[in-house]
Amino acid sequence: MGLVIVGFGGMGHEHFRKLEGVKELTVLGTFDVKADRQTFAQSLGTKAYPSFEAVLDDPKVAVVLLATPNDSHKDLAVAALQAGKHVICEKPVALNTAEFDEIVRVSKEADRLFMVHQNRRWDEDYLTVKRILAEGTLGKFYHLESRVLGSRGIPGDWRKIARFGGGMMLDWGVHLLDRIVFLIPGRITQVFCKLNHPTGQEVDEGFHLFLTFEGGQTALIEVETCHYQPLPLWLVLGTKGTAMIKDWSLAGGIVAQAGSEPDAKPIVAGAGLTKTMAPRTEAAEVHLPLPVVKSDVRDFYRNFVQAALGREAPLVKNDEVRRIMALMEAAFESHRQGQVVAFE
Amino acid sequence: MGLVIVGFGGMGHEHFRKLEGVKELTVLGTFDVKADRQTFAQSLGTKAYPSFEAVLDDPKVAVVLLATPNDSHKDLAVAALQAGKHVICEKPVALNTAEFDEIVRVSKEADRLFMVHQNRRWDEDYLTVKRILAEGTLGKFYHLESRVLGSRGIPGDWRKIARFGGGMMLDWGVHLLDRIVFLIPGRITQVFCKLNHPTGQEVDEGFHLFLTFEGGQTALIEVETCHYQPLPLWLVLGTKGTAMIKDWSLAGGIVAQAGSEPDAKPIVAGAGLTKTMAPRTEAAEVHLPLPVVKSDVRDFYRNFVQAALGREAPLVKNDEVRRIMALMEAAFESHRQGQVVAFE
Repeated sequence: MGLVIVGFGGMGHEHFRKLEGVKELTVLGTFDVKADRQTFAQSLGTKAYPSFEAVLDDPKVAVVLLATPNDSHKDLAVAALQAGKHVICEKPVALNTAEFDEIVRVSKEADRLFMVHQNRRWDEDYLTVKRILAEGTLGKFYHLESRVLGSRGIPGDWRKIARFGGGMMLDWGVHLLDRIVFLIPGRITQVFCKLNHPTGQEVDEGFHLFLTFEGGQTALIEVETCHYQPLPLWLVLGTKGTAMIKDWSLAGGIVAQAGSEPDAKPIVAGAGLTKTMAPRTEAAEVHLPLPVVKSDVRDFYRNFVQAALGREAPLVKNDEVRRIMALMEAAFESHRQGQVVAFE
Repeated sequence: MGLVIVGFGGMGHEHFRKLEGVKELTVLGTFDVKADRQTFAQSLGTKAYPSFEAVLDDPKVAVVLLATPNDSHKDLAVAALQAGKHVICEKPVALNTAEFDEIVRVSKEADRLFMVHQNRRWDEDYLTVKRILAEGTLGKFYHLESRVLGSRGIPGDWRKIARFGGGMMLDWGVHLLDRIVFLIPGRITQVFCKLNHPTGQEVDEGFHLFLTFEGGQTALIEVETCHYQPLPLWLVLGTKGTAMIKDWSLAGGIVAQAGSEPDAKPIVAGAGLTKTMAPRTEAAEVHLPLPVVKSDVRDFYRNFVQAALGREAPLVKNDEVRRIMALMEAAFESHRQGQVVAFE
């Protein structure tokens, strides 16, 4: 299938490079409103379409891939679907569920596939956590923490601007939440969220988000852009062990119980003693490596083609995407009200 | 002043050892309802009073130190105060603010000093955080996290029993909250708390507690007893740097901005790219040691004597202790309701 990339910034170029390894899709060209990006595309030997309309008018184009700022997704997607194109769209797909519902309605009317690029479902850190939970190494799972922390602030482009869909909830929250709900099944009963704006940006520069699931499990999701000493990407807590993934290189491991041990002896801790927080003895714990899962994010594109041809179900389903959009709306609402929002 | 230690378990013995270095107070003896502890006290060469009444009847006893389970503090304190003794009491002083108010009322009526052993105000990790905030190294402070995490569960004594005042909020929460409010001034506007019971105990085995202050600063307090890979004791986030204290040995440091740097280059992170979360360049950050503060927890006892003699104000004030009790009640209420509680 012929594909054109619309929006040729960082993500557009990343798609361009990734698609080189996907034989089912042929990049016919790109389009961007900025002249320097048009020139850049031509320098890579690909066609720079003169306008978005020219992309839609080209009958060789079966797929439009949208990698433009978040506020433009809806209008561009609707136009492309109505022009008979299948659409791959960057995340977050829309600024609210109402916009998203309109896209999905048009997709059904036009009988064209609309699929959101939730590429981080192919993150190996996340897939490794999924395997750890499936293997049950940690005993009964009760809490997890998922963090992405940086110190460089929000880049000085549209990501800082509210009306373009900027802010860390829409940028990173959308990924972290999309992964969490595949790790913890069931309804989300409570959403508590606190956004922060340490350097005074109009969009959220970071947040703490606390979720409670109907099974009683909880999750803490944290994103920061003003954090100079990052905590681990993942912590997964079970009754018999804890898994930690420190960073994108998948450093980390599992520490688990190895049999019981006698009542702890108090240790000196600061100005007092503690028996409760005494460390385990070495004999009573075992250190295990992470059961690392390998993945290929290009499976996203391959599945897209098969789904467009009606041969496979899409791996990223629109009802899943909608649920995460609604969850982000609940998080914004929780912050605004200073209250817990009952979600599902 | 002559002092008797009532309750000669772990904390009672710890007081006994600490008081050896305090010339202003003389340990006249101990009392415990358990025979083996009476024998143990005698083996240390101190007198084992035959009953609590015998302690109160002894005119040489000016101070009663209560290191008994939490549910017994109120009745013992009231009796001691009414017998004309000054009282040092272990924390948490009472199971609720109503009990506490009664003790304070009796203390005023009897004109005797009642002071709670908030020993962790002398913790060097906490005092170091206090100095970091005072020195302003981190720029504008906006968030901190205080954690105490262990994996051995709750010790199998009264700490597991609700009616004895067990559970991690009353055991550790009382300390961590008592320190937090000296680090972040002003009213606490919102309290969100989620207790956990991973191994099914009747008391809380751990919790996440999220506080919002009137100045907009936030704090996350976490205690766990089923956590096998502890996070740092402290994280302090400012606009220009982050301080981390890893453990009780005061390992850790400060990472701070060293000038601005050009727009980040995207890095590969899992299945995607990120510009926002690219690390700082080495030239753009500076690593500083922690400004470690040293302390002597025996200053607590020395101040107690001076305060009982009317020469100094007590370092641990009853209205401070009451505020923390009310805060813990708000935390329990937040968990029970599944809601944010408006506190002050």
